[in-house]
Amino acid sequence: MVSTSSTAQGFGLDHLPYGVFSTGGGPRRVGVRFEEGVLDLFAATGRPEFDSPSLNAFLALGPQVWRQTREEVRALAESGDHQIPLADVVLHLPIEVADYVDFYASIDHATNVGAMFRPDGDALTPNWRHLPIGYHGRAGTVVASGTPIVRPCGQRKAPDEAAPTFGPSRRLDIEAELGFVVGAPSRLGEPVPTTGLADHVFGVTGLNDWSARDLQAWEYVPLGPFLGKSFATSISPWVTPLAALDAAWVDLPEQDPEPLPYLSPGATRGLDIDVEVVLNGEVISRPPFRTMYWSPAQMLAHMTVNGASLRTGDLFASGTISGPEHGQRGSLLELSWGGKEPFQAGGREHSFLEDGDEVVLRYSAPGVSGDRITLGEVVGRVEPSRP
Amino acid sequence: MVSTSSTAQGFGLDHLPYGVFSTGGGPRRVGVRFEEGVLDLFAATGRPEFDSPSLNAFLALGPQVWRQTREEVRALAESGDHQIPLADVVLHLPIEVADYVDFYASIDHATNVGAMFRPDGDALTPNWRHLPIGYHGRAGTVVASGTPIVRPCGQRKAPDEAAPTFGPSRRLDIEAELGFVVGAPSRLGEPVPTTGLADHVFGVTGLNDWSARDLQAWEYVPLGPFLGKSFATSISPWVTPLAALDAAWVDLPEQDPEPLPYLSPGATRGLDIDVEVVLNGEVISRPPFRTMYWSPAQMLAHMTVNGASLRTGDLFASGTISGPEHGQRGSLLELSWGGKEPFQAGGREHSFLEDGDEVVLRYSAPGVSGDRITLGEVVGRVEPSRP
Repeated sequence: MVSTSSTAQGFGLDHLPYGVFSTGGGPRRVGVRFEEGVLDLFAATGRPEFDSPSLNAFLALGPQVWRQTREEVRALAESGDHQIPLADVVLHLPIEVADYVDFYASIDHATNVGAMFRPDGDALTPNWRHLPIGYHGRAGTVVASGTPIVRPCGQRKAPDEAAPTFGPSRRLDIEAELGFVVGAPSRLGEPVPTTGLADHVFGVTGLNDWSARDLQAWEYVPLGPFLGKSFATSISPWVTPLAALDAAWVDLPEQDPEPLPYLSPGATRGLDIDVEVVLNGEVISRPPFRTMYWSPAQMLAHMTVNGASLRTGDLFASGTISGPEHGQRGSLLELSWGGKEPFQAGGREHSFLEDGDEVVLRYSAPGVSGDRITLGEVVGRVEPSRP
Repeated sequence: MVSTSSTAQGFGLDHLPYGVFSTGGGPRRVGVRFEEGVLDLFAATGRPEFDSPSLNAFLALGPQVWRQTREEVRALAESGDHQIPLADVVLHLPIEVADYVDFYASIDHATNVGAMFRPDGDALTPNWRHLPIGYHGRAGTVVASGTPIVRPCGQRKAPDEAAPTFGPSRRLDIEAELGFVVGAPSRLGEPVPTTGLADHVFGVTGLNDWSARDLQAWEYVPLGPFLGKSFATSISPWVTPLAALDAAWVDLPEQDPEPLPYLSPGATRGLDIDVEVVLNGEVISRPPFRTMYWSPAQMLAHMTVNGASLRTGDLFASGTISGPEHGQRGSLLELSWGGKEPFQAGGREHSFLEDGDEVVLRYSAPGVSGDRITLGEVVGRVEPSRP
């Protein structure tokens, strides 16, 4: 469930993102956001894939259908028919998530976190510049923007404590990320090359990978993050088609050393998406997605190079987007440097999230018409842990 | 697809595991294994949840329906009606896997692997005796027993090499595990206590967590295993209901130090399941599940203590089952001590898997009638990597 107060700006004919809505407690259906309304695609087209509680049936039809439908949707939006005011709908989780993979593709984020989590070693692990590090997260706890985030409980142990204790996380954090939604599946045993991005990925969504840093720090060696992440991951209500981002592609910074050939070195194209992290109404950071080290196509190629197959609904995320500047960091862990350097927002000091805090992630990108488009916001408010 | 040559032994009235079958290229349906046949549950009962390509619809109905159905199935099996000879059916993946979590619950396995992967530190990480370490694996590549295992490609770097290279895994391995299949879901934000195992877990399945040790060793710091595991995980065609394992519960070895209260110290009950690892027809190891350190109920409670919800079809696995003896190790990594101590089987030396090798995992447990029951085998044959 999502607040519907966003403005029409950024949701013009050059955008037309897809989501799932309901009205008056009725069934969930696929819709397209246009200005201040939602185009009811099943009502407008009668196509059965739109009479569905997720985008998956539509996504499974593949890139040719996505392209044709985008043309059709543009004409429908211009007609003004079958449009429901945004204020009259409830928005839901747009996709049924198959597998969720989270990467670690920002060199500034990885350097910052490495310096804090492993102060005695190199900030970047030896593999970091050779492959886009990633891991599987919990697909079943990917939730719609607006879902309350209950502070998780678990085991925490500070370095100076003799044994772990159990209780609510004291270092609850965000990670401002971009998510990529797989539409067309691939076959087991058949890697997807870097050139296959648009054949398989339908579009992008904002993503907040909520993180309990104290749980994570205690549990993550040797098999990676688990309960420190698995309590909730929020995504936008709207999935922006890659086709709406044609004007947003940019070259990414140089990769050194040159990665192995399957990662297509020298052809690393990223997206010029600006992110804003808003805490209790105040912008506290502006992470730039164009500074990422690893490209979306490289993440996809790496994830499948061992023959792992893709399914409709797979979601892979970039990892925290952090730029080189302090005001471009995509997590509170980095903004407060592990809590040691609290920052000011809303007239008081912050380090990690407190109960009642609300975080909004906003995203914008150059649209094909020359105006900027606005991806769906990702909203979450922290609730106290339950006894 | 699965070979159907197993014997009737271990598949009597005290067992009655569930699977998914088809005949003559027809639709997939739910069946129950009884002796040398498969009971066609949709034909026998007309219940729509059995006219389904996975067990999920049935599993979602919850423990009361599971119990009632087990009584009904026993009567149907005794009647002899609606039974199809095993030789006439094709068996399929029994469940649609929601989230797949892999634990690391054998202290002998963790000690062995830690000694090999981190020779300069303690074999067990400081958290190991405080919590059942686990991580999310790839649900979309859980495959039916019998599915060929194509040797994965990826990045490998030996410690003495300056840079990684790309190519087929040179250290392809198995992990003999037990999988737990979640039937009844739980709500986001509501942890499942250790006493909730039978309320949520429908049953168990054999599981081979195929592992590419060279890919894994290079990639796994700091976020855990990814491509070294995600190419394939095989499970049994038959899911054995927990109800068929009532006579198999045993106390597990003592846990020291005492874990935190949410892990119910002192009440750690495990399953007395004997495993056999068969390589090219020869038994090379006999891992005993009764030697695991962490119990299934503790894994479930830990996995949800942060509020993470369960979905029907969630699969969580024990991690490699290794006992304290050499002949009880559940991976080739341990049996060959990282390849340094090749072992004999079939008249020749082995360390890691070679193309053409076939691995069968067999499982048996005390049944409620006094005879032993036999879980579904997990079979996989290694095929060469594809160019």
